[in-house]
Amino acid sequence: MNIVLLEPSQTACAEQWLIENPRQLQHLKQHVQLNIGDTLKIGIRHGQRYLTEVLNISEQRIVLKPIQVEDVPEKLPVHLILALPRPKVLRRIIMDAVTLGVERISLIHSYRVDKSYWQSPFLQQLNDYVTLGLEQAGDTVEPEIQMYKRFKPFVEDVLPSLISAEKPAYVAHPYADQSMPHAIQQTCTVIVGPEGGFIPYEIELLKKNGCQAMCLGNRILRTETAISYILGRLIV
Amino acid sequence: MNIVLLEPSQTACAEQWLIENPRQLQHLKQHVQLNIGDTLKIGIRHGQRYLTEVLNISEQRIVLKPIQVEDVPEKLPVHLILALPRPKVLRRIIMDAVTLGVERISLIHSYRVDKSYWQSPFLQQLNDYVTLGLEQAGDTVEPEIQMYKRFKPFVEDVLPSLISAEKPAYVAHPYADQSMPHAIQQTCTVIVGPEGGFIPYEIELLKKNGCQAMCLGNRILRTETAISYILGRLIV
Repeated sequence: MNIVLLEPSQTACAEQWLIENPRQLQHLKQHVQLNIGDTLKIGIRHGQRYLTEVLNISEQRIVLKPIQVEDVPEKLPVHLILALPRPKVLRRIIMDAVTLGVERISLIHSYRVDKSYWQSPFLQQLNDYVTLGLEQAGDTVEPEIQMYKRFKPFVEDVLPSLISAEKPAYVAHPYADQSMPHAIQQTCTVIVGPEGGFIPYEIELLKKNGCQAMCLGNRILRTETAISYILGRLIV
Repeated sequence: MNIVLLEPSQTACAEQWLIENPRQLQHLKQHVQLNIGDTLKIGIRHGQRYLTEVLNISEQRIVLKPIQVEDVPEKLPVHLILALPRPKVLRRIIMDAVTLGVERISLIHSYRVDKSYWQSPFLQQLNDYVTLGLEQAGDTVEPEIQMYKRFKPFVEDVLPSLISAEKPAYVAHPYADQSMPHAIQQTCTVIVGPEGGFIPYEIELLKKNGCQAMCLGNRILRTETAISYILGRLIV
């Protein structure tokens, strides 16, 4: 947690902002030795970031006063399309994608995505994972998140409208001939398959609808490792 | 698990190789519907990789016959120096670094590394984490792993001998002016600090001893995210 993310309602009073969320209070208690008069970095969801001063600390709340505005980091001009991950790794993957700053996340179905994943209670907690990612990055702006439970309609009807010469789409695929490019200077879409990868039919359909299959060398990475590896590689 | 890693002793008989490790048997049973006559990718620790044929399957063992030799992926020419991570994330970080193919890993102390981390029982399980990383990547060759429990002697006495004009050392530091380079064509050392980062004294000492501090943009990444992000960025 590199900033504490507050809701706009918590900062309605210009001179007295309140941290009252138990998770945030617990984290600060455990990891930050906060004293009255200390400064604390605060973000307002969808809004500005501020340096604040701690006015008061109790078990139930921390009272803050804004001192100065700070820069909110820019988003990466990337739309990340992910085969829905296993519930167990969903939290980490969403949190990482948000921390890295992708502008938009689409979760899609694929042959090797177990249908039960779409029923996972973790899918109801996406907002919490987004908050954790924003607090890690020091960001305040949530990415757009969509879900598409059918692969073919998504690839044939939605995906083509997202791709153009100025906005390429790269699908990570261990058996592609070309390598994922470095430091591209444009907006792009990155598609990452499930554990076990997309099946050949899916790769073909993605290619037919405008995607370029790109390999990441001859090591097979876990999804979560692949995402940060690809973004580190693509983004200037 | 994209290959099953066997010890050389398990492949001593040229025509009958045995998988007897309960973890590996359990994984195959759970995730791979293996039948007699199927092929299976096998690596021999420190040795070759093979495509094999399944000759027999029982509760206690799987019997295989090698069919053909396969390529072992090359290592990245990177020495990763890490402030010892929290025990809870150590497994994932070591596994990822091995999967990504770093040649050498050094775990070092730093001001923000809790001294108790050096007593963690997880440190006794590094070999297991390495095995998991190799099996994920399809690799057979363990990286060299060293530990240095004192920061200053390591930085002053060991580190300088690892750095040269042809072999730069980059320390990831959020407040550096320069950005981590892209697609360098040389061997390098990458240094990643603990949660909360290196303290200014440590950054100064690293710089005095030949390291270049490089930032990763204005988002603060978790250690595990930073490692794959940096390697994606640096490596051609």
